[in-house]
Amino acid sequence: LATKLPRVGTTIFTTMSQLAAEHSAVNLGQGFPDFDVPPFLVEALAQAMREGHNQYAPMAGVPALREAIAEKAAGLYGARVDAGSDITVTSGATEAIFCAVHAAVRAGDEVIVLDPCYDSYEPAIDLAGARAVHVPLVEPDFHVDWQRVCEAITPRTRMLIVNSPNNPTGAVFSAADLDALAAILRETRVLLLSDEVYEHIVFDGAVHQSVLRHPELAARSFVVSSFGKTYHCTGWKLGHCIAPPALSAEFRKVHQYVTFCSFNPAQHALARMMREHPEHHLELPAFYQDKRDRFRALLADTPFRPLPVAGTYFQLADYSAISDLDDLAFCRWLTVEKGVTAIPLSPFLAEPPPGQRLVRFCFAKSDATQQAAAERLRTL
Amino acid sequence: LATKLPRVGTTIFTTMSQLAAEHSAVNLGQGFPDFDVPPFLVEALAQAMREGHNQYAPMAGVPALREAIAEKAAGLYGARVDAGSDITVTSGATEAIFCAVHAAVRAGDEVIVLDPCYDSYEPAIDLAGARAVHVPLVEPDFHVDWQRVCEAITPRTRMLIVNSPNNPTGAVFSAADLDALAAILRETRVLLLSDEVYEHIVFDGAVHQSVLRHPELAARSFVVSSFGKTYHCTGWKLGHCIAPPALSAEFRKVHQYVTFCSFNPAQHALARMMREHPEHHLELPAFYQDKRDRFRALLADTPFRPLPVAGTYFQLADYSAISDLDDLAFCRWLTVEKGVTAIPLSPFLAEPPPGQRLVRFCFAKSDATQQAAAERLRTL
Ligand SMILES: CSCCC(=O)C(=O)O
Ligand SMILES: CSCCC(=O)C(=O)O
Repeated sequence: LATKLPRVGTTIFTTMSQLAAEHSAVNLGQGFPDFDVPPFLVEALAQAMREGHNQYAPMAGVPALREAIAEKAAGLYGARVDAGSDITVTSGATEAIFCAVHAAVRAGDEVIVLDPCYDSYEPAIDLAGARAVHVPLVEPDFHVDWQRVCEAITPRTRMLIVNSPNNPTGAVFSAADLDALAAILRETRVLLLSDEVYEHIVFDGAVHQSVLRHPELAARSFVVSSFGKTYHCTGWKLGHCIAPPALSAEFRKVHQYVTFCSFNPAQHALARMMREHPEHHLELPAFYQDKRDRFRALLADTPFRPLPVAGTYFQLADYSAISDLDDLAFCRWLTVEKGVTAIPLSPFLAEPPPGQRLVRFCFAKSDATQQAAAERLRTL
Repeated sequence: LATKLPRVGTTIFTTMSQLAAEHSAVNLGQGFPDFDVPPFLVEALAQAMREGHNQYAPMAGVPALREAIAEKAAGLYGARVDAGSDITVTSGATEAIFCAVHAAVRAGDEVIVLDPCYDSYEPAIDLAGARAVHVPLVEPDFHVDWQRVCEAITPRTRMLIVNSPNNPTGAVFSAADLDALAAILRETRVLLLSDEVYEHIVFDGAVHQSVLRHPELAARSFVVSSFGKTYHCTGWKLGHCIAPPALSAEFRKVHQYVTFCSFNPAQHALARMMREHPEHHLELPAFYQDKRDRFRALLADTPFRPLPVAGTYFQLADYSAISDLDDLAFCRWLTVEKGVTAIPLSPFLAEPPPGQRLVRFCFAKSDATQQAAAERLRTL
């Protein structure tokens, strides 16, 4: 069987998590917390099962959950989102990204992605028979050069994928970014896919610039988020897509044949969590900022040079004071020889700049885990 | 946004379940049981959450679950299945079907499907840019005419999709069917996608003819099954795909970008269920045969003419003694006016034969539900 994805192997997250397990390394690679989901959610899920919510959920998601999402979007972003027509619950943000691409992008189309970017975008584009056009973010702070994005738009461009807070760079959009984005899309038929899975993890008093704040952009956007990142349950694999009715209709046509619907009891549990603990996400910025600050303080005692982080649970760090290995080789070495796992940056890049020496650490970890990693990194 | 799936609306299952809810009809439409998952599984899932299995599962599935699947396939079908390389856990059989098609089928390919067939096959094929070639099953018993399948194969044929026990017809393969299938594929490069979600629901002493019993076929097959159908938890959305290593490798490349992995705690719970209650599925044939027999006895007091059912939880029935409406109009009428919901056959068919008057009832229901439906149907 000739492969349809010749450039794709096993994802870097799986590869590095496996290597970490084999070598009992402290795993700061794949993005997941090492602390647990709120007990309320565990008990609410158990109760939903006991109440018998074990058969198919509605294809678009449990109504109470969609209503909670709509209310939150209204309260947080001033967005007018209709729970009936605009929201689809998915089996993780990954499924939402895949469905948005497959709903809108046709063979021969072009989709603009901003490098470095999450590794599922391009394979989703490839499987739709389209072509990813890569525009680099601008170092050192990985901001978007909107002029370059504008120049990358052609008559074939069907979609632009943006991601703020950004994985892996930790950069976040300003309000001016959204305005610039709106200006360059205004005269085009380009759709926007906005990956906002870290929407509640922004630091230093910043405000998340959701596309949902911007009616002109929202009108042409699929806005994707994740319950896993917000409620510390990445393994529950629930996310959602918000899009205007016409886009949601096409999104659902794909979703209904990709997974049909998502795990039902957790949808009931999340609906209760959002209703009974609406303040949960308000605590996340301080919670994760503290983790970021602790981790950066620990890195200060190592030869790593940390880059700025404005959001997400990721810290980029330059290791050129430690090694001349390329980033993949360095991450293997760091896991096998030093017992700490990070993610190399190159899998997020179409063309890794030669000589770039950056890795990504996940700091969504308990103090003990951070300390254990730091002890090992201090010996470098 | 021009649609990529012009022939697709909302699935018939969603449409009819919504209509049933609006009219408080007894819902014998969408295929799900109205009795619950075994309490052991509910408690095992709750325990898995409390033990902290709430972050990403491995991309291919929790190892203990894959080992249990491999052991069961060996015991039941004499299949040599490697838990490491041959099994991928998916977010329902629907995701497995979608990923198998997208792993193997390219733009311009042809995929043979046997009508009537499950409604997700053709949209998955369409989204891969390929073309579904429809070969009708032969009435009255809906057997496969293998000669016609053979004649439908062209140099462009990449895949054949089969489904035994068959949704919606209830027909099952004989061992001779597998031999005939092997003979016609032998000299071709056609891959097989075998949808076996009702593998444990066969009646009258029949033996499920899994493709996994047939090494020659298994070597070119994606074999898909569902935990939802076996453990009465369709809303848990867990299934799996068994395929030889080379096919599984391509399958996983797609799966990892479609959903990445599936709900983690349920995988741990199912692994325990399979280990501690390996006899569960052995009880299903008698359990569902009893339901089939009760439902057929109830239908005998109505003007419906039931067709034979050898497996699945579906009963086809001819309503030509009741109405001349087409099947979709009849199902709406039956829901709205008589308070019983069935699924029309035409959405399973590329070209519904004019004058065909068949609907599908789901008999995976408690006695009380069956009785409530029958009381209403007797007034016809
Ligand atoms: C789906 S595994 C990857 C998790 C993640 O978002 C990341 O590590 O970037
Ligand atoms: C995924 S909803 C449809 C369930 C089912 O398998 C059927 O009713 O045929």
